[in-house]
Amino acid sequence: MKKILNTTDSFVRDTMEGIVAAYSDRLDFLDGDYRVLVSKSPAREDKVGIVTAGGSGHLPLFLGYVGQGMIDGCAVGEVFASPASEKMADMIRACDRGAGVLCLYGNYNGDIFNFRMACEDVEFDDIETRQVLGRDDVASSPKENAAKRRGVAGIVYGYKIAGAAADLGKTLDEVAQLAERALGNVRTMGVALSPCIVPKVGKPTFEIGDNEIEIGMGIHGEAGIEVRPMMTADEIATVTLEAIIADMPLAEGDEVSVMVNGLGATPLEEQFIFYRSVASQLAARGISIVQPHIGEFATSMEMAGLSVTIFKLDSELKELLLAPASTPFYTNTNK
Amino acid sequence: MKKILNTTDSFVRDTMEGIVAAYSDRLDFLDGDYRVLVSKSPAREDKVGIVTAGGSGHLPLFLGYVGQGMIDGCAVGEVFASPASEKMADMIRACDRGAGVLCLYGNYNGDIFNFRMACEDVEFDDIETRQVLGRDDVASSPKENAAKRRGVAGIVYGYKIAGAAADLGKTLDEVAQLAERALGNVRTMGVALSPCIVPKVGKPTFEIGDNEIEIGMGIHGEAGIEVRPMMTADEIATVTLEAIIADMPLAEGDEVSVMVNGLGATPLEEQFIFYRSVASQLAARGISIVQPHIGEFATSMEMAGLSVTIFKLDSELKELLLAPASTPFYTNTNK
Repeated sequence: MKKILNTTDSFVRDTMEGIVAAYSDRLDFLDGDYRVLVSKSPAREDKVGIVTAGGSGHLPLFLGYVGQGMIDGCAVGEVFASPASEKMADMIRACDRGAGVLCLYGNYNGDIFNFRMACEDVEFDDIETRQVLGRDDVASSPKENAAKRRGVAGIVYGYKIAGAAADLGKTLDEVAQLAERALGNVRTMGVALSPCIVPKVGKPTFEIGDNEIEIGMGIHGEAGIEVRPMMTADEIATVTLEAIIADMPLAEGDEVSVMVNGLGATPLEEQFIFYRSVASQLAARGISIVQPHIGEFATSMEMAGLSVTIFKLDSELKELLLAPASTPFYTNTNK
Repeated sequence: MKKILNTTDSFVRDTMEGIVAAYSDRLDFLDGDYRVLVSKSPAREDKVGIVTAGGSGHLPLFLGYVGQGMIDGCAVGEVFASPASEKMADMIRACDRGAGVLCLYGNYNGDIFNFRMACEDVEFDDIETRQVLGRDDVASSPKENAAKRRGVAGIVYGYKIAGAAADLGKTLDEVAQLAERALGNVRTMGVALSPCIVPKVGKPTFEIGDNEIEIGMGIHGEAGIEVRPMMTADEIATVTLEAIIADMPLAEGDEVSVMVNGLGATPLEEQFIFYRSVASQLAARGISIVQPHIGEFATSMEMAGLSVTIFKLDSELKELLLAPASTPFYTNTNK
């Protein structure tokens, strides 16, 4: 294992301290605790709070979306491990402005269990909460069992829509419903070319051949659907888009946002080559793209590979997607 | 070699087409030629033009800085190879608004030779040009021969300062002098943990042991100063900062901007762990940091490693650094 770090024990703390050292004007630890990051950006007084949580090792997910027009707080765990429910409860209390708090996170057992406990906990403080889960990874479970699907990069669209809705002054139920509707229209499919290494484990999460690609790999190295000989960018686009469209039909004239997400080690050049394939295949189907996202949004440290996310838009979701947002890791300055 | 691409021959063209497909509202090819990218952002009529050029394989360098508040055009070559002088000349003509054009690029023989020819060429069209070169890599040549140093990530600060100066309506000479002054205050030092692969070559650019780190590596895999056993983040910060400060003394009370630049495969987590070390060592010297840049600014495709750049500020340079800028790959929304 060759990583730039001080000790494997301090990996998460050192990362978090580096982030707050860099962006202390916009982010802070809650009560000095590096496990909970909160936004210092100004927000309207009656704004619904939005929080998330998840394991470390996925930067800019999850904490990178704390900021203006997105989410208010994020609790972080060890690498690929859920944070404690007490931290989540502290965060919910800190992010409540009296209008309640939406907990928006990926569909993983640890996070679900801990967030449920945290929400029960804050009931004693008369804080209303709602929970909305990201389940965008089509490869992780068949359509009949879509409720079991894992959340991956597509949750970023959930943060964007919920954040914009909250900024408009919508109620907790309205924000939760919009987030739910948005995530219902989001599908992701990923491919992996190389594994990553959890610092405290010190060896690769899985093995893959020199000329192989794994289709449907999860962001913690969960096994995919199949291993194939390495494919071209066009072929990868075909396989991933067909899986997504089989699950969420798209028709000529539809508008979608597309996210091409590098998993960590994959160069931007390859991401744009892949985006070109995706855009041309969607154009051939008569589907137009609004505000594409290309870059690293949800990584697995040094894993090589990428995912494609399709977010099917309607006029309301499109408007919320295009609303301005600004965090140290995400900026949407488009009209 | 396992890369997401269609053919090695179309690597650059497919990348460029993906970029323009994604950002057609802000960027375009010049006369349909994928080798020259120009900005579609509005600019003042009397603005000095600023252009750059360089080999592919370094995204977001060089073309990622084409946009508002930065540069107006970029000519791209094959991977790690300079573009042709004819393309540079076409670009200079397209980016001249009558106030002349600054050519701002890295100190590499191919780029120098081709830009000189291009500038001679456009003289016949009565276009005034100036040339300013990035030479920030302290490891590439000793101080006595600083003019021979290579340009690496630090050139981004040159684009930022020149772009802000041009937006203020400064003349070609003023913009060139400010860029020169800024780059005179910029030093970079990099370390590499793994090589990259040029697509058409198909094998790694160099070799490095499983537990080794190369200090002073260039962004094309140029040999560094020494190979050492792997070090901690704190140790890497010490070695790189000491080399930079020995070359460009910093005193208590100085203000600097710091860029921590991931070379491609290095996770953001490690970049922030390293930034934490740099920030704490600078703080111990009484030096304060203005607007840190952490992320990928100048890469070598899938090379693992990072560089640190120090930009020593004065009040004028600081104001220009903080001026707004927005490109598809770089946003500065700070006050």
